[in-house]
Amino acid sequence: MNSAEELYPQLISGNRRALSKSISLVESTLPAHRTEAEKLLKLCSALPINSRRIAITGVPGAGKSTSIEALGMHYILQGKKVAVLAIDPSSSRGKGSILGDKTRMELLSAHPMAYIRPTPTRGFLGGIGAATAEAIKLVEAAGYDTILIETVGVGQSETLATEVSDMMLMIYLTGAGDELQGVKKGIMEVIDLIFINKIENNEAAITRGKKTKAELHRALHFLQEKDSGCGVIIKMGSALENFGIAELAQSIDEHFIEIENNGYLEKKREEQALHHFKSQLQRYLLIHLESLPSIQKLIKKNSLEKENFSQPSAIAKEIITANFPTTS
Amino acid sequence: MNSAEELYPQLISGNRRALSKSISLVESTLPAHRTEAEKLLKLCSALPINSRRIAITGVPGAGKSTSIEALGMHYILQGKKVAVLAIDPSSSRGKGSILGDKTRMELLSAHPMAYIRPTPTRGFLGGIGAATAEAIKLVEAAGYDTILIETVGVGQSETLATEVSDMMLMIYLTGAGDELQGVKKGIMEVIDLIFINKIENNEAAITRGKKTKAELHRALHFLQEKDSGCGVIIKMGSALENFGIAELAQSIDEHFIEIENNGYLEKKREEQALHHFKSQLQRYLLIHLESLPSIQKLIKKNSLEKENFSQPSAIAKEIITANFPTTS
Repeated sequence: MNSAEELYPQLISGNRRALSKSISLVESTLPAHRTEAEKLLKLCSALPINSRRIAITGVPGAGKSTSIEALGMHYILQGKKVAVLAIDPSSSRGKGSILGDKTRMELLSAHPMAYIRPTPTRGFLGGIGAATAEAIKLVEAAGYDTILIETVGVGQSETLATEVSDMMLMIYLTGAGDELQGVKKGIMEVIDLIFINKIENNEAAITRGKKTKAELHRALHFLQEKDSGCGVIIKMGSALENFGIAELAQSIDEHFIEIENNGYLEKKREEQALHHFKSQLQRYLLIHLESLPSIQKLIKKNSLEKENFSQPSAIAKEIITANFPTTS
Repeated sequence: MNSAEELYPQLISGNRRALSKSISLVESTLPAHRTEAEKLLKLCSALPINSRRIAITGVPGAGKSTSIEALGMHYILQGKKVAVLAIDPSSSRGKGSILGDKTRMELLSAHPMAYIRPTPTRGFLGGIGAATAEAIKLVEAAGYDTILIETVGVGQSETLATEVSDMMLMIYLTGAGDELQGVKKGIMEVIDLIFINKIENNEAAITRGKKTKAELHRALHFLQEKDSGCGVIIKMGSALENFGIAELAQSIDEHFIEIENNGYLEKKREEQALHHFKSQLQRYLLIHLESLPSIQKLIKKNSLEKENFSQPSAIAKEIITANFPTTS
């Protein structure tokens, strides 16, 4: 691994290899790598950043990749630099990433103004959400101004995505049913924009799309107003046929202008930064605590006695009390 | 809240109110409750237990509740005591449980030999998986010998369910498509039995079921053998019409006999117990560490300085080093 001092100048010059190496560095769980990773992130934190972080969700088969490809190419034609990242909590089980191959986004992955990074490999130690948050910082430092974050799976990954993104776009199918697509209270509260996909430019498809749109409007009617102060926008089109993508991009634009003006974007990013710091601090407190030989010995000893298994809190208290001076 | 000494005798006599109070106690995050909860769990850990823990997964709409109702009533008619618990990671966001109302399982919820407990309310501190594991111990102590664990959502909850159950049953629909139903490598590796639901007792439905069964067999063909040493069993029927439920229950029986005989069940439960203890111990180490005033002060101080946000590991190391005697 390269050092932070070596990587930083190459990274901010937009060097792709340096960017990939930097992301690998922050994904690493080795203590020595972590030290360099934090040096690099600290250097990056001083940079002025002006980016948009857009999370994309939807059930498998809804067309998330195709939508990212279409939307990404649209932004590139507008002169943007586009980075695509993925959040996949299930990959922490080490059973292979779903995103994986870049072949699902043919145009984007071949384009010099786009950078695609598959699912983070960092597992429990740092957390997938945290790994993505740090990867975002690095692609921003490398000059990417439009970050598309693909969520994989339903439920957990949306929660992680809201913690690292500015807005959430849902790719939706007609006919597949609300329930099956995860349209439920918890998730809909974090959705800013719904794109009804696979609506081609013909009368029958558009009628179908309008019907779904009306249904969604009814379903969303009962939602309380969101923290952003904005309602849920619903658009339709076909990512595969590039139909409705310009309108979708315009809605995203308008949403950003609104949350930039009403102060929500700034507030959200500040809250996210504090939240991330606190949860990461907790993880590393535990890691550094467990790295102490005296603590390691106690954990090992207690793990050998089955009668302890029902009282983890009591054992933990004992360990802390035995090792900390009682000065308070 | 009652004390562990008060609850324990009522709990093991099978008193339902005492059981509900006991589960609320272990779900509580208040330190005083936690102390009592661990006393109670320790008392329970000495009991001889002979139960079966069956997790039920499947996309929303597949008929999980109906299947649990049918299977649960089948077991009750066989003289079993049935407990239904739920794992819903999304409920930790505090946005309401999906299971919630017992009305979805009318017969079971009215039956004196069944006990239904909605989603655990315990959030981050103890973890939903841990809360369910402890609830299982309590219903077992109360004499329930058949535990049905409903998973909610796709992805995360299956992982949690494998950590607390002996086997995993998937409720499957014909026609809805593999991909949309979460049939992917990661999940299929933890499935022991698939029940193709909504196959009524008529020729057309059975033909449809057989076709799906053949497709699933082909899809599963490439899976490596599982740790249990058993292949995936596929059954079909209609939970709503109680068709094929006796055969399903028989397959579950046979699976249990197999994993009891080949030693897998015992090994799995031992591994689960150790894993739970270790992860719970970690959580409580952190909680007790953070409860120390000197640590609290340092966390607060460091959270006020934004330039720290990019280096949580370095700050954590400083805090630990400053507070621990360097004896190693």
